[in-house]
Amino acid sequence: MTVAFIGIGLIGGSMAISLKENGFATTTIGVDINPDNIDKAIRRRIIDEGLPMQDAIQRADVIVLATPVNVMIQLLPQILDQVDQQVVIDVGSTKKLLCEAVKNHPKRGRFVATHPMAGTEFSGPEAAIPNLFDHKCSVICDQQNSDADALKTVYRLLESLKMNIVELEVSEHDTHSAYVSHISHISSFALALTVLEKEKNEKRIFELASGGFSSTVRLAKSSAAMWTPIFEQNRDNVLDVLDEHINTLAQFRTLLIKKDFEKISSLIDEANAIARILK
Amino acid sequence: MTVAFIGIGLIGGSMAISLKENGFATTTIGVDINPDNIDKAIRRRIIDEGLPMQDAIQRADVIVLATPVNVMIQLLPQILDQVDQQVVIDVGSTKKLLCEAVKNHPKRGRFVATHPMAGTEFSGPEAAIPNLFDHKCSVICDQQNSDADALKTVYRLLESLKMNIVELEVSEHDTHSAYVSHISHISSFALALTVLEKEKNEKRIFELASGGFSSTVRLAKSSAAMWTPIFEQNRDNVLDVLDEHINTLAQFRTLLIKKDFEKISSLIDEANAIARILK
Repeated sequence: MTVAFIGIGLIGGSMAISLKENGFATTTIGVDINPDNIDKAIRRRIIDEGLPMQDAIQRADVIVLATPVNVMIQLLPQILDQVDQQVVIDVGSTKKLLCEAVKNHPKRGRFVATHPMAGTEFSGPEAAIPNLFDHKCSVICDQQNSDADALKTVYRLLESLKMNIVELEVSEHDTHSAYVSHISHISSFALALTVLEKEKNEKRIFELASGGFSSTVRLAKSSAAMWTPIFEQNRDNVLDVLDEHINTLAQFRTLLIKKDFEKISSLIDEANAIARILK
Repeated sequence: MTVAFIGIGLIGGSMAISLKENGFATTTIGVDINPDNIDKAIRRRIIDEGLPMQDAIQRADVIVLATPVNVMIQLLPQILDQVDQQVVIDVGSTKKLLCEAVKNHPKRGRFVATHPMAGTEFSGPEAAIPNLFDHKCSVICDQQNSDADALKTVYRLLESLKMNIVELEVSEHDTHSAYVSHISHISSFALALTVLEKEKNEKRIFELASGGFSSTVRLAKSSAAMWTPIFEQNRDNVLDVLDEHINTLAQFRTLLIKKDFEKISSLIDEANAIARILK
Protein backbone atom coordinates (compact mmCIF):
# COMPACT_ATOMS: atom_id res chain seq x y z
CA MET A 1 0.00 0.00 0.00
CA THR A 2 1.03 3.59 -0.53
CA VAL A 3 0.60 5.66 2.62
CA ALA A 4 0.70 9.48 2.62
CA PHE A 5 1.41 11.42 5.80
CA ILE A 6 0.07 14.96 5.98
CA GLY A 7 2.40 16.40 8.61
CA ILE A 8 5.78 14.71 9.15
CA GLY A 9 6.42 15.38 12.81
CA LEU A 10 6.79 13.13 15.85
CA ILE A 11 3.62 11.11 15.18
CA GLY A 12 3.45 11.15 11.37
CA GLY A 13 7.19 10.49 11.11
CA SER A 14 7.24 7.70 13.67
CA MET A 15 4.29 6.01 12.00
CA ALA A 16 5.93 6.32 8.57
CA ILE A 17 9.05 4.58 9.91
CA SER A 18 7.10 1.71 11.46
CA LEU A 19 4.62 1.13 8.62
CA LYS A 20 7.46 0.91 6.10
CA GLU A 21 9.48 -1.35 8.37
CA ASN A 22 6.64 -3.78 9.09
CA GLY A 23 5.63 -4.00 5.44
CA PHE A 24 2.18 -2.39 5.71
CA ALA A 25 3.43 0.45 3.49
CA THR A 26 5.30 -0.28 0.26
CA THR A 27 5.75 3.45 -0.36
CA THR A 28 5.55 6.36 2.09
CA ILE A 29 4.84 9.90 0.92
CA GLY A 30 5.29 12.98 3.07
CA VAL A 31 3.36 16.24 2.84
CA ASP A 32 4.39 19.15 5.04
CA ILE A 33 3.82 22.89 4.99
CA ASN A 34 7.50 23.27 5.88
CA PRO A 35 9.79 22.11 3.02
CA ASP A 36 12.65 21.70 5.53
CA ASN A 37 10.66 18.97 7.26
CA ILE A 38 10.32 17.07 3.97
CA ASP A 39 14.05 17.41 3.30
CA LYS A 40 14.94 16.21 6.78
CA ALA A 41 12.45 13.34 6.61
CA ILE A 42 13.85 12.12 3.29
CA ARG A 43 17.47 12.44 4.43
CA ARG A 44 16.64 10.46 7.57
CA ARG A 45 14.77 7.85 5.44
CA ILE A 46 11.57 8.51 7.37
CA ILE A 47 9.63 8.83 4.08
CA ASP A 48 10.37 7.76 0.52
CA GLU A 49 9.35 11.02 -1.13
CA GLY A 50 7.67 14.39 -0.64
CA LEU A 51 4.73 15.61 -2.70
CA PRO A 52 2.18 18.44 -2.72
CA MET A 53 -0.97 17.43 -0.84
CA GLN A 54 -3.18 17.02 -3.90
CA ASP A 55 -0.71 14.69 -5.63
CA ALA A 56 -0.15 12.71 -2.45
CA ILE A 57 -3.91 12.15 -2.04
CA GLN A 58 -4.16 10.89 -5.61
CA ARG A 59 -1.25 8.48 -5.19
CA ALA A 60 -2.09 7.12 -1.74
CA ASP A 61 -4.24 4.20 -0.60
CA VAL A 62 -4.19 5.46 2.99
CA ILE A 63 -3.85 9.08 4.10
CA VAL A 64 -2.70 9.80 7.66
CA LEU A 65 -3.54 13.31 8.87
CA ALA A 66 -0.90 14.16 11.49
CA THR A 67 -0.91 17.94 11.90
CA PRO A 68 -1.85 19.97 14.99
CA VAL A 69 -5.59 19.52 15.62
CA ASN A 70 -6.57 23.04 14.53
CA VAL A 71 -5.05 22.38 11.09
CA MET A 72 -6.84 19.00 10.91
CA ILE A 73 -10.20 20.72 11.10
CA GLN A 74 -9.30 22.83 8.09
CA LEU A 75 -7.68 20.06 6.06
CA LEU A 76 -9.93 17.05 6.64
CA PRO A 77 -12.93 18.36 4.64
CA GLN A 78 -10.58 19.37 1.79
CA ILE A 79 -8.96 15.95 1.80
CA LEU A 80 -12.31 14.15 1.75
CA ASP A 81 -13.34 16.37 -1.20
CA GLN A 82 -10.50 14.82 -3.20
CA VAL A 83 -10.88 11.23 -2.03
CA ASP A 84 -12.33 8.38 -4.05
CA GLN A 85 -11.69 4.98 -2.42
CA GLN A 86 -8.76 6.06 -0.28
CA VAL A 87 -8.92 5.64 3.48
CA VAL A 88 -8.24 8.69 5.68
CA ILE A 89 -7.30 8.63 9.37
CA ASP A 90 -6.33 11.38 11.74
CA VAL A 91 -4.11 10.89 14.80
CA GLY A 92 -5.46 13.81 16.84
CA SER A 93 -5.85 14.11 20.60
CA THR A 94 -9.35 15.65 20.33
CA LYS A 95 -12.25 14.28 18.30
CA LYS A 96 -15.51 16.14 18.85
CA LEU A 97 -14.94 19.18 16.62
CA LEU A 98 -13.14 17.16 13.95
CA CYS A 99 -15.96 14.63 13.63
CA GLU A 100 -18.54 17.44 13.58
CA ALA A 101 -16.61 19.17 10.79
CA VAL A 102 -17.15 16.21 8.43
CA LYS A 103 -20.42 14.84 9.84
CA ASN A 104 -22.37 15.49 6.67
CA HIS A 105 -19.54 15.12 4.18
CA PRO A 106 -20.52 12.74 1.34
CA LYS A 107 -17.18 10.94 1.85
CA ARG A 108 -17.49 10.65 5.66
CA GLY A 109 -17.39 6.85 5.32
CA ARG A 110 -13.79 6.94 4.03
CA PHE A 111 -12.65 8.60 7.29
CA VAL A 112 -11.81 6.69 10.46
CA ALA A 113 -11.33 8.88 13.56
CA THR A 114 -8.23 7.48 15.25
CA HIS A 115 -6.12 8.42 18.24
CA PRO A 116 -2.95 6.39 18.78
CA MET A 117 -2.14 7.19 22.42
CA ALA A 118 1.61 7.41 22.16
CA GLY A 119 4.07 10.25 22.03
CA THR A 120 7.03 11.97 23.59
CA GLU A 121 7.65 15.54 24.65
CA PHE A 122 9.58 16.24 21.45
CA SER A 123 8.32 17.39 18.06
CA GLY A 124 9.26 17.64 14.40
CA PRO A 125 10.67 14.96 12.06
CA GLU A 126 13.86 14.79 14.15
CA ALA A 127 11.70 13.45 16.99
CA ALA A 128 10.38 10.52 14.92
CA ILE A 129 11.43 7.17 16.37
CA PRO A 130 10.82 3.49 15.59
CA ASN A 131 8.55 1.41 17.84
CA LEU A 132 6.76 4.45 19.31
CA PHE A 133 3.40 2.68 19.06
CA ASP A 134 4.37 -0.84 20.21
CA HIS A 135 1.82 -2.22 22.69
CA LYS A 136 0.22 1.21 23.22
CA CYS A 137 -3.50 1.84 22.99
CA SER A 138 -5.22 3.34 19.95
CA VAL A 139 -8.73 4.69 20.17
CA ILE A 140 -11.12 4.49 17.21
CA CYS A 141 -14.13 6.77 17.51
CA ASP A 142 -17.64 6.43 16.11
CA GLN A 143 -16.76 3.56 13.84
CA GLN A 144 -20.40 3.16 12.82
CA ASN A 145 -19.82 6.23 10.64
CA SER A 146 -16.94 4.66 8.71
CA ASP A 147 -17.21 2.27 5.75
CA ALA A 148 -16.58 -1.35 6.67
CA ASP A 149 -13.62 -1.72 4.30
CA ALA A 150 -12.03 1.53 5.54
CA LEU A 151 -12.36 0.35 9.12
CA LYS A 152 -10.83 -3.01 8.23
CA THR A 153 -7.82 -1.29 6.66
CA VAL A 154 -7.32 0.90 9.74
CA TYR A 155 -7.54 -2.11 12.07
CA ARG A 156 -4.87 -3.82 9.94
CA LEU A 157 -2.73 -0.66 10.05
CA LEU A 158 -2.98 -0.31 13.84
CA GLU A 159 -2.43 -4.02 14.42
CA SER A 160 0.67 -3.88 12.25
CA LEU A 161 1.92 -1.25 14.73
CA LYS A 162 1.21 -3.74 17.58
CA MET A 163 -1.40 -1.40 19.03
CA ASN A 164 -4.33 -2.42 21.24
CA ILE A 165 -7.53 -0.99 19.82
CA VAL A 166 -10.27 0.53 22.00
CA GLU A 167 -13.56 1.76 20.58
CA LEU A 168 -15.07 4.89 22.10
CA GLU A 169 -17.71 7.46 21.34
CA VAL A 170 -16.35 10.87 20.43
CA SER A 171 -17.47 12.57 23.64
CA GLU A 172 -16.20 9.71 25.82
CA HIS A 173 -12.84 9.94 24.06
CA ASP A 174 -12.49 13.65 24.66
CA THR A 175 -13.36 13.31 28.36
CA HIS A 176 -10.89 10.47 28.88
CA SER A 177 -8.15 12.30 27.00
CA ALA A 178 -8.57 15.28 29.31
CA TYR A 179 -7.97 12.98 32.29
CA VAL A 180 -5.18 10.75 31.09
CA SER A 181 -3.28 13.18 28.92
CA HIS A 182 -4.30 16.83 28.74
CA ILE A 183 -4.25 17.54 32.49
CA SER A 184 -0.79 15.97 32.78
CA HIS A 185 0.47 18.51 30.29
CA ILE A 186 -1.11 21.49 32.04
CA SER A 187 0.26 20.23 35.36
CA SER A 188 3.77 19.96 33.87
CA PHE A 189 3.62 23.36 32.17
CA ALA A 190 2.47 24.95 35.43
CA LEU A 191 5.11 23.19 37.51
CA ALA A 192 7.85 24.26 35.11
CA LEU A 193 6.63 27.87 35.23
CA THR A 194 6.48 27.79 39.04
CA VAL A 195 10.07 26.63 39.31
CA LEU A 196 11.36 28.90 36.52
CA GLU A 197 9.78 31.88 38.28
CA LYS A 198 11.73 31.02 41.42
CA GLU A 199 14.89 30.36 39.43
CA LYS A 200 15.15 34.03 38.52
CA ASN A 201 16.66 34.42 41.96
CA GLU A 202 18.23 31.06 42.50
CA LYS A 203 20.53 29.43 39.98
CA ARG A 204 21.04 26.57 42.36
CA ILE A 205 17.85 24.86 41.28
CA PHE A 206 19.57 23.85 38.05
CA GLU A 207 22.19 21.90 39.91
CA LEU A 208 19.72 20.21 42.21
CA ALA A 209 16.98 19.08 39.85
CA SER A 210 16.82 15.30 40.15
CA GLY A 211 15.04 12.41 38.51
CA GLY A 212 11.71 12.89 40.23
CA PHE A 213 11.53 16.51 39.19
CA SER A 214 12.52 15.69 35.60
CA SER A 215 9.79 13.09 35.45
CA THR A 216 7.00 15.44 36.55
CA VAL A 217 8.05 18.33 34.30
CA ARG A 218 9.16 16.28 31.28
CA LEU A 219 5.97 17.08 29.37
CA ALA A 220 6.61 20.80 29.86
CA LYS A 221 8.96 20.59 26.86
CA SER A 222 5.95 19.87 24.63
CA SER A 223 5.24 22.37 21.88
CA ALA A 224 2.70 25.19 22.06
CA ALA A 225 1.80 24.66 18.39
CA MET A 226 0.54 21.18 19.16
CA TRP A 227 -0.96 21.71 22.61
CA THR A 228 -2.71 25.09 22.46
CA PRO A 229 -5.23 23.87 19.84
CA ILE A 230 -5.85 20.71 21.90
CA PHE A 231 -6.71 22.80 24.97
CA GLU A 232 -8.85 25.02 22.74
CA GLN A 233 -10.81 22.14 21.22
CA ASN A 234 -11.22 20.24 24.48
CA ARG A 235 -11.64 23.32 26.66
CA ASP A 236 -14.73 22.25 28.62
CA ASN A 237 -13.39 18.83 29.59
CA VAL A 238 -9.97 20.26 30.42
CA LEU A 239 -11.58 22.90 32.63
CA ASP A 240 -13.53 20.20 34.49
CA VAL A 241 -10.40 18.18 35.23
CA LEU A 242 -8.33 21.25 36.01
CA ASP A 243 -10.93 22.36 38.56
CA GLU A 244 -10.77 18.97 40.23
CA HIS A 245 -6.98 19.00 40.20
CA ILE A 246 -6.82 22.48 41.74
CA ASN A 247 -9.33 21.37 44.39
CA THR A 248 -7.19 18.36 45.29
CA LEU A 249 -4.08 20.54 45.58
CA ALA A 250 -6.07 22.99 47.70
CA GLN A 251 -7.01 20.07 49.95
CA PHE A 252 -3.31 19.30 50.51
CA ARG A 253 -2.78 23.02 51.18
CA THR A 254 -5.53 23.12 53.80
CA LEU A 255 -4.20 19.98 55.50
CA LEU A 256 -0.68 21.47 55.60
CA ILE A 257 -2.03 24.69 57.12
CA LYS A 258 -4.00 22.68 59.69
CA LYS A 259 -1.00 20.38 60.27
CA ASP A 260 -3.26 17.39 59.73
CA PHE A 261 -0.45 15.03 58.72
CA GLU A 262 -2.48 11.94 59.52
CA LYS A 263 -4.95 12.85 56.79
CA ILE A 264 -2.09 13.74 54.40
CA SER A 265 -0.65 10.30 55.03
CA SER A 266 -3.94 8.61 54.23
CA LEU A 267 -4.30 10.67 51.02
CA ILE A 268 -0.84 9.48 49.96
CA ASP A 269 -1.90 5.88 50.65
CA GLU A 270 -4.94 6.46 48.41
CA ALA A 271 -2.78 7.99 45.68
CA ASN A 272 -0.49 4.94 45.77
CA ALA A 273 -3.34 2.99 44.14
CA ILE A 274 -2.32 4.68 40.88
CA ALA A 275 0.34 1.96 40.63
CA ARG A 276 -2.47 -0.26 39.31
CA ILE A 277 -2.91 1.82 36.16
CA LEU A 278 0.64 2.77 35.37
CA LYS A 279 2.35 0.88 32.62
CA MET B 1 36.22 0.98 56.11
CA THR B 2 33.25 -0.52 57.87
CA VAL B 3 30.05 1.31 57.02
CA ALA B 4 26.82 0.84 58.98
CA PHE B 5 23.45 1.72 57.50
CA ILE B 6 20.65 2.60 59.91
CA GLY B 7 17.66 1.86 57.70
CA ILE B 8 18.07 -0.52 54.76
CA GLY B 9 15.56 0.82 52.28
CA LEU B 10 15.87 2.31 48.80
CA ILE B 11 18.57 4.84 49.74
CA GLY B 12 20.47 2.97 52.47
CA GLY B 13 20.37 -0.26 50.49
CA SER B 14 21.44 1.33 47.20
CA MET B 15 24.31 3.11 48.92
CA ALA B 16 25.41 -0.13 50.62
CA ILE B 17 25.55 -1.89 47.25
CA SER B 18 27.60 0.86 45.61
CA LEU B 19 30.03 1.52 48.50
CA LYS B 20 30.85 -2.19 48.71
CA GLU B 21 31.20 -2.47 44.94
CA ASN B 22 33.48 0.53 44.57
CA GLY B 23 35.70 -0.53 47.49
CA PHE B 24 34.95 2.38 49.83
CA ALA B 25 33.40 -0.11 52.26
CA THR B 26 35.19 -3.31 53.17
CA THR B 27 32.29 -4.39 55.36
CA THR B 28 28.66 -3.21 55.31
CA ILE B 29 26.41 -3.59 58.34
CA GLY B 30 22.64 -3.16 58.28
CA VAL B 31 20.43 -1.96 61.12
CA ASP B 32 16.67 -1.95 60.64
CA ILE B 33 13.68 -1.86 62.94
CA ASN B 34 12.13 -4.53 60.73
CA PRO B 35 14.04 -7.86 60.94
CA ASP B 36 12.53 -8.92 57.58
CA ASN B 37 14.38 -6.05 55.92
CA ILE B 38 17.69 -7.29 57.33
CA ASP B 39 16.96 -10.84 56.13
CA LYS B 40 16.04 -9.62 52.66
CA ALA B 41 19.07 -7.35 52.49
CA ILE B 42 21.45 -10.17 53.45
CA ARG B 43 19.84 -12.64 51.04
CA ARG B 44 20.15 -10.09 48.23
CA ARG B 45 23.77 -9.41 49.25
CA ILE B 46 22.97 -5.74 49.84
CA ILE B 47 24.73 -5.85 53.23
CA ASP B 48 27.25 -8.26 54.75
CA GLU B 49 25.53 -8.59 58.14
CA GLY B 50 22.82 -7.25 60.41
CA LEU B 51 23.41 -5.96 63.93
CA PRO B 52 21.57 -4.11 66.68
CA MET B 53 22.17 -0.36 66.42
CA GLN B 54 24.49 -0.07 69.41
CA ASP B 55 26.79 -2.84 68.14
CA ALA B 56 26.77 -1.44 64.61
CA ILE B 57 27.82 2.00 65.88
CA GLN B 58 30.73 0.45 67.82
CA ARG B 59 31.92 -1.56 64.81
CA ALA B 60 31.54 1.12 62.13
CA ASP B 61 33.89 3.82 60.86
CA VAL B 62 31.06 5.55 59.03
CA ILE B 63 27.38 5.48 60.01
CA VAL B 64 24.75 6.33 57.38
CA LEU B 65 21.38 7.33 58.81
CA ALA B 66 18.81 6.39 56.17
CA THR B 67 15.42 6.25 57.89
CA PRO B 68 12.37 8.48 57.29
CA VAL B 69 13.23 12.03 58.46
CA ASN B 70 11.00 11.93 61.56
CA VAL B 71 12.95 8.90 62.83
CA MET B 72 16.26 10.63 62.05
CA ILE B 73 15.45 13.41 64.50
CA GLN B 74 14.96 10.84 67.27
CA LEU B 75 17.96 8.67 66.39
CA LEU B 76 20.69 11.18 65.49
CA PRO B 77 21.22 12.52 69.06
CA GLN B 78 21.27 8.92 70.40
CA ILE B 79 23.81 7.91 67.76
CA LEU B 80 26.07 10.88 68.49
CA ASP B 81 25.87 9.98 72.22
CA GLN B 82 27.57 6.68 71.36
CA VAL B 83 30.10 7.97 68.85
CA ASP B 84 33.80 8.42 69.45
CA GLN B 85 35.72 9.07 66.21
CA GLN B 86 33.12 7.62 63.84
CA VAL B 87 31.65 9.79 61.11
CA VAL B 88 27.85 10.07 60.88
CA ILE B 89 25.88 11.24 57.85
CA ASP B 90 22.18 11.40 57.19
CA VAL B 91 20.59 11.19 53.73
CA GLY B 92 17.42 13.12 54.51
CA SER B 93 15.37 15.39 52.30
CA THR B 94 14.96 18.07 55.00
CA LYS B 95 17.71 19.57 57.12
CA LYS B 96 16.59 22.42 59.34
CA LEU B 97 15.01 20.47 62.21
CA LEU B 98 17.65 17.74 62.10
CA CYS B 99 20.53 20.19 62.37
CA GLU B 100 18.74 22.06 65.14
CA ALA B 101 18.25 18.79 67.05
CA VAL B 102 22.05 18.30 67.39
CA LYS B 103 23.18 21.92 67.29
CA ASN B 104 24.63 21.83 70.80
CA HIS B 105 25.58 18.17 70.91
CA PRO B 106 29.20 17.72 72.09
CA LYS B 107 29.77 15.37 69.15
CA ARG B 108 28.17 17.67 66.51
CA GLY B 109 31.52 17.78 64.69
CA ARG B 110 31.31 14.06 63.84
CA PHE B 111 28.06 14.66 61.90
CA VAL B 112 27.92 15.81 58.29
CA ALA B 113 24.46 16.82 57.07
CA THR B 114 24.13 15.23 53.64
CA HIS B 115 21.39 14.94 51.02
CA PRO B 116 22.16 12.75 48.02
CA MET B 117 19.52 13.89 45.53
CA ALA B 118 18.66 10.58 43.98
CA GLY B 119 15.82 8.14 44.36
CA THR B 120 12.96 6.32 42.72
CA GLU B 121 9.28 6.00 43.57
CA PHE B 122 9.89 2.60 45.23
CA SER B 123 10.88 1.78 48.79
CA GLY B 124 12.27 -0.99 50.97
CA PRO B 125 15.39 -3.13 50.48
CA GLU B 126 13.82 -4.71 47.38
CA ALA B 127 13.99 -1.25 45.76
CA ALA B 128 17.77 -0.93 46.28
CA ILE B 129 19.66 -0.73 42.98
CA PRO B 130 23.28 -0.28 41.88
CA ASN B 131 24.38 3.02 40.34
CA LEU B 132 21.48 5.02 41.81
CA PHE B 133 23.81 7.90 42.69
CA ASP B 134 25.99 8.03 39.57
CA HIS B 135 26.47 11.62 38.40
CA LYS B 136 23.67 12.91 40.62
CA CYS B 137 24.04 15.86 42.96
CA SER B 138 24.64 15.58 46.71
CA VAL B 139 24.15 18.53 49.00
CA ILE B 140 26.28 18.99 52.10
CA CYS B 141 24.83 21.47 54.61
CA ASP B 142 26.58 23.71 57.12
CA GLN B 143 29.92 22.04 56.72
CA GLN B 144 31.52 24.63 59.03
CA ASN B 145 29.92 22.69 61.89
CA SER B 146 31.59 19.40 60.93
CA ASP B 147 35.13 18.32 61.87
CA ALA B 148 37.60 18.62 59.00
CA ASP B 149 38.43 14.89 58.96
CA ALA B 150 34.76 13.90 59.06
CA LEU B 151 34.04 16.18 56.13
CA LYS B 152 36.98 14.76 54.20
CA THR B 153 35.68 11.22 54.71
CA VAL B 154 32.20 12.21 53.50
CA TYR B 155 33.63 13.91 50.41
CA ARG B 156 35.54 10.71 49.63
CA LEU B 157 32.40 8.65 50.18
CA LEU B 158 30.27 10.82 47.88
CA GLU B 159 32.98 11.03 45.24
CA SER B 160 33.30 7.25 45.26
CA LEU B 161 29.59 7.25 44.33
CA LYS B 162 30.42 9.59 41.40
CA MET B 163 28.28 12.33 42.93
CA ASN B 164 28.66 16.06 42.32
CA ILE B 165 28.85 17.88 45.63
CA VAL B 166 27.07 21.19 46.28
CA GLU B 167 27.44 23.10 49.55
CA LEU B 168 24.37 24.86 50.90
CA GLU B 169 23.14 26.45 54.10
CA VAL B 170 20.43 24.48 55.86
CA SER B 171 17.64 26.95 55.10
CA GLU B 172 18.70 27.30 51.45
CA HIS B 173 18.67 23.52 51.12
CA ASP B 174 15.16 23.19 52.50
CA THR B 175 13.80 25.91 50.21
CA HIS B 176 15.41 24.36 47.13
CA SER B 177 14.22 20.88 48.05
CA ALA B 178 10.65 22.18 48.24
CA TYR B 179 10.99 23.46 44.66
CA VAL B 180 12.87 20.70 42.93
CA SER B 181 11.50 17.70 44.78
CA HIS B 182 8.73 18.11 47.35
CA ILE B 183 6.26 19.98 45.12
CA SER B 184 6.72 17.37 42.35
CA HIS B 185 5.54 14.74 44.80
CA ILE B 186 2.50 16.72 45.94
CA SER B 187 1.62 17.43 42.32
CA SER B 188 1.84 13.71 41.47
CA PHE B 189 -0.15 12.61 44.52
CA ALA B 190 -2.86 15.15 43.68
CA LEU B 191 -2.97 14.20 40.00
CA ALA B 192 -3.27 10.52 40.88
CA LEU B 193 -6.12 11.26 43.30
CA THR B 194 -7.90 13.41 40.71
CA VAL B 195 -7.81 10.64 38.13
CA LEU B 196 -8.63 7.86 40.61
CA GLU B 197 -11.66 9.82 41.76
CA LYS B 198 -12.89 9.89 38.16
CA GLU B 199 -12.02 6.24 37.63
CA LYS B 200 -14.69 5.18 40.08
CA ASN B 201 -17.07 5.66 37.17
CA GLU B 202 -14.83 4.93 34.24
CA LYS B 203 -12.67 1.83 33.99
CA ARG B 204 -11.56 2.96 30.56
CA ILE B 205 -8.90 5.25 31.97
CA PHE B 206 -6.83 2.19 32.80
CA GLU B 207 -6.66 1.16 29.20
CA LEU B 208 -5.86 4.61 27.94
CA ALA B 209 -3.16 5.81 30.33
CA SER B 210 -0.08 6.48 28.21
CA GLY B 211 3.53 7.40 28.70
CA GLY B 212 2.98 11.07 29.42
CA PHE B 213 0.49 10.32 32.14
CA SER B 214 2.74 7.67 33.69
CA SER B 215 5.58 10.13 33.78
CA THR B 216 3.66 12.83 35.63
CA VAL B 217 2.11 10.49 38.19
CA ARG B 218 5.09 8.15 38.65
CA LEU B 219 6.02 9.76 41.97
CA ALA B 220 2.51 9.11 43.28
CA LYS B 221 3.67 5.58 44.08
CA SER B 222 6.03 7.02 46.73
CA SER B 223 5.42 5.91 50.30
CA ALA B 224 3.50 7.87 52.92
CA ALA B 225 5.97 6.74 55.61
CA MET B 226 8.79 8.56 53.87
CA TRP B 227 6.94 11.59 52.51
CA THR B 228 4.54 12.65 55.25
CA PRO B 229 7.40 13.52 57.66
CA ILE B 230 9.17 15.43 54.89
CA PHE B 231 6.08 17.57 54.30
CA GLU B 232 5.76 18.00 58.06
CA GLN B 233 9.35 19.11 58.56
CA ASN B 234 9.43 21.37 55.50
CA ARG B 235 5.85 22.59 55.85
CA ASP B 236 6.44 26.33 55.44
CA ASN B 237 8.55 26.04 52.30
CA VAL B 238 6.22 23.45 50.79
CA LEU B 239 3.24 25.73 51.46
CA ASP B 240 5.01 28.62 49.70
CA VAL B 241 5.67 26.58 46.58
CA LEU B 242 2.27 24.93 46.65
CA ASP B 243 0.62 28.36 46.76
CA GLU B 244 2.63 29.45 43.73
CA HIS B 245 1.80 26.23 41.89
CA ILE B 246 -1.93 26.57 42.60
CA ASN B 247 -1.76 30.19 41.41
CA THR B 248 -0.11 29.16 38.15
CA LEU B 249 -2.75 26.48 37.56
CA ALA B 250 -5.45 29.05 38.38
CA GLN B 251 -3.89 31.31 35.76
CA PHE B 252 -4.32 28.55 33.13
CA ARG B 253 -7.88 28.11 34.37
CA THR B 254 -8.68 31.80 33.97
CA LEU B 255 -7.16 31.88 30.49
CA LEU B 256 -9.19 28.83 29.46
CA ILE B 257 -12.37 30.45 30.78
CA LYS B 258 -11.53 33.68 28.91
CA LYS B 259 -10.52 31.66 25.82
CA ASP B 260 -7.23 33.56 25.72
CA PHE B 261 -5.34 30.89 23.79
CA GLU B 262 -2.69 33.33 22.61
CA LYS B 263 -1.60 33.87 26.21
CA ILE B 264 -1.79 30.11 26.91
CA SER B 265 0.50 29.56 23.94
CA SER B 266 3.02 32.08 25.24
CA LEU B 267 2.95 30.48 28.72
CA ILE B 268 3.73 27.12 27.11
CA ASP B 269 6.64 28.73 25.25
CA GLU B 270 7.91 30.04 28.59
CA ALA B 271 7.51 26.63 30.23
CA ASN B 272 9.55 25.06 27.42
CA ALA B 273 12.61 26.77 28.93
CA ILE B 274 12.57 24.02 31.56
CA ALA B 275 14.41 21.91 28.97
CA ARG B 276 17.55 23.77 30.10
CA ILE B 277 17.43 22.32 33.59
CA LEU B 278 16.27 18.79 32.90
CA LYS B 279 18.84 16.07 33.00
